Amino acid sequence: MNFVSTKEDLTLGLQVVQRAVSSKNPLPILAGIKFTTGTGCLDLTATDLEIGIRCIIPAEIIEPGEIVLPSRYITELIKKLPALPVHFQSDHFSTGAVIKYGQSETIINGFPADEFPQISFESESQDLIFTSAAFKDAVRKISYAVSQEETRPVYTGILMEIGSGEVNLVATDTYRMARFTLPFDEDSCHDINLIIPGKTLNELTKIIADGETKIHLSLLGNQVLFKSGNICLISRLIDGNFPSYRKVIPTDCVSRVRIKTRDLLEATDRAALIARENAPVIKLHIDQKIISIKVSTEAGRVDEKVMASHEGEPLQVAFNARYLSDALRVIGAEDVEMEFTGPLSPAVLRPAGAVNYFSLLLPVRIQEE
Amino acid sequence: MNFVSTKEDLTLGLQVVQRAVSSKNPLPILAGIKFTTGTGCLDLTATDLEIGIRCIIPAEIIEPGEIVLPSRYITELIKKLPALPVHFQSDHFSTGAVIKYGQSETIINGFPADEFPQISFESESQDLIFTSAAFKDAVRKISYAVSQEETRPVYTGILMEIGSGEVNLVATDTYRMARFTLPFDEDSCHDINLIIPGKTLNELTKIIADGETKIHLSLLGNQVLFKSGNICLISRLIDGNFPSYRKVIPTDCVSRVRIKTRDLLEATDRAALIARENAPVIKLHIDQKIISIKVSTEAGRVDEKVMASHEGEPLQVAFNARYLSDALRVIGAEDVEMEFTGPLSPAVLRPAGAVNYFSLLLPVRIQEE
Repeated sequence: MNFVSTKEDLTLGLQVVQRAVSSKNPLPILAGIKFTTGTGCLDLTATDLEIGIRCIIPAEIIEPGEIVLPSRYITELIKKLPALPVHFQSDHFSTGAVIKYGQSETIINGFPADEFPQISFESESQDLIFTSAAFKDAVRKISYAVSQEETRPVYTGILMEIGSGEVNLVATDTYRMARFTLPFDEDSCHDINLIIPGKTLNELTKIIADGETKIHLSLLGNQVLFKSGNICLISRLIDGNFPSYRKVIPTDCVSRVRIKTRDLLEATDRAALIARENAPVIKLHIDQKIISIKVSTEAGRVDEKVMASHEGEPLQVAFNARYLSDALRVIGAEDVEMEFTGPLSPAVLRPAGAVNYFSLLLPVRIQEE
Repeated sequence: MNFVSTKEDLTLGLQVVQRAVSSKNPLPILAGIKFTTGTGCLDLTATDLEIGIRCIIPAEIIEPGEIVLPSRYITELIKKLPALPVHFQSDHFSTGAVIKYGQSETIINGFPADEFPQISFESESQDLIFTSAAFKDAVRKISYAVSQEETRPVYTGILMEIGSGEVNLVATDTYRMARFTLPFDEDSCHDINLIIPGKTLNELTKIIADGETKIHLSLLGNQVLFKSGNICLISRLIDGNFPSYRKVIPTDCVSRVRIKTRDLLEATDRAALIARENAPVIKLHIDQKIISIKVSTEAGRVDEKVMASHEGEPLQVAFNARYLSDALRVIGAEDVEMEFTGPLSPAVLRPAGAVNYFSLLLPVRIQEE
């Protein structure tokens, strides 16, 4: 293998694919990044066997070939190079690559490329096409509700309910739930449900370009494949049945408020300070045009008052302050609407007037004082 | 106690004094910040019994008084407040303070102020006066050589050799040493040596203003007191004799190079990548106009070449890459001069042409290949 590339292109490509490198993996070769020459380009690939990422960068290929180099050494070395052409060279008889820049060179020992897991990035199914900015926004707005507990795998995933021209992205950890409805650029009906690991979609939003760039989603056996620009990401799907979340969405409400998102978020964060760290419960008293947030612990007492528009019955309801804060932080609108059915039924939060996004938050049962 | 202040003033003051708060201290009151009303101002004080910091901020005093509030709660609360006047109130019968902002309030439980350690910030001796920017620069340029090992307290300190109109700041961990000579605004002779904890001077440089601001240094019993603007910092001194460092400064050299600081630093950092993590030894071959840096480990091999002006004998010398990198990072000049007396004698590094600053670096003994 023999090629010339630039520090900039290599840095960008390595930064993308190294997100799939797991330092904890017992298989040493998986701490590596596979370099494969193409036609006027270089394929960089990494995998932790859960996800695989490929990034194609421009390169002047002098002699084709492939090699696997430890991510830790090659990524850091490239970052530290001067802004000069970077010349890579390796031969069939060694597993090391000579990296030349200016008058200097570094040899990094690696692994034979044929010991690296084979990963296909060729899709089998029809593509769904999303706009990058919209897709990223949807993932950001629901992923706070993804569970971190690996003991219940289904809850660590994001449900994609693919229907006619739109898809529902749903996440829940059983304490809260969020759903975002996203259109896609196609009008055929699919009717398929996928559960994609939350981690996969988070990584995807970090590596793909912003704005009007397109993201193509397709299936490949029991895996899901995303393509966007010069980047591909493949991931396992999560087996199992996602809970039938529609049952818990309240259809009615006894009390409704509209409030400045920032006011409520800041008051919640201040109240959380004084709340117990392991169980940061705060009480909301909703009456007339004021929401009071109250907490009383050994650290002190909080009495926050936030102005709101209110319709319906007065109500007292308690929430985990961190969960309320998580939901408010991604509302993305000046005003938030909250609907309550009672002190023990889930509250509905949505950006004022929005129909494509809402979240549910289960209250905490508290003792009457 | 009853006063009104602003979020901005309180935030600035609390950020300064909380650097003296130790979360690890077994005495709960030391996790607190003492609020004392003055005349049109508020004194904020914190201490971990090693250092004490006081910051005076403007405030409208309605009723004098004092209280100690847990740093963790008060600092975070103030940071999260809206930009409104902040009203503090506490009475003699409680150890809590009511903090009012807009329509809301938070009560933070605290401690009676008379249980807080008494700290005097009144100096007894004549002041030495430095310019802030110059003092900060001096501390930054030598503090990398301060030892982190608490078992040898003298090496965790910075020696201040105060003479006529100038002071030598010296740090060493026995593997490397750095000395900076700093003038002060006064011409009387002092002839006194102080060993100030490295941590103290680092904290000081973080809290005092930049530029032409003055720093006043004075003694208070076996403590040192710094004053700058509205900030005071008091610290214990370290007992013991600082090693007689002058003995190890080479007076002659067999080889001298002048080199672009950045070229050598970047080459050293790349070589350090491939070097062994626990003993990152790199070899420098100095001959003619080239310094070669070589490393060979199981991870790979490095051969960096850096152009230099060279006088004297060719030389091969090995260093700990991290130590060389630390010294080069603070040189603060385009070119660095290095002088060598032999492969086992300390090398001298200085910004090209500088007479007020140099550092020593002890080579590593290596086996001949």
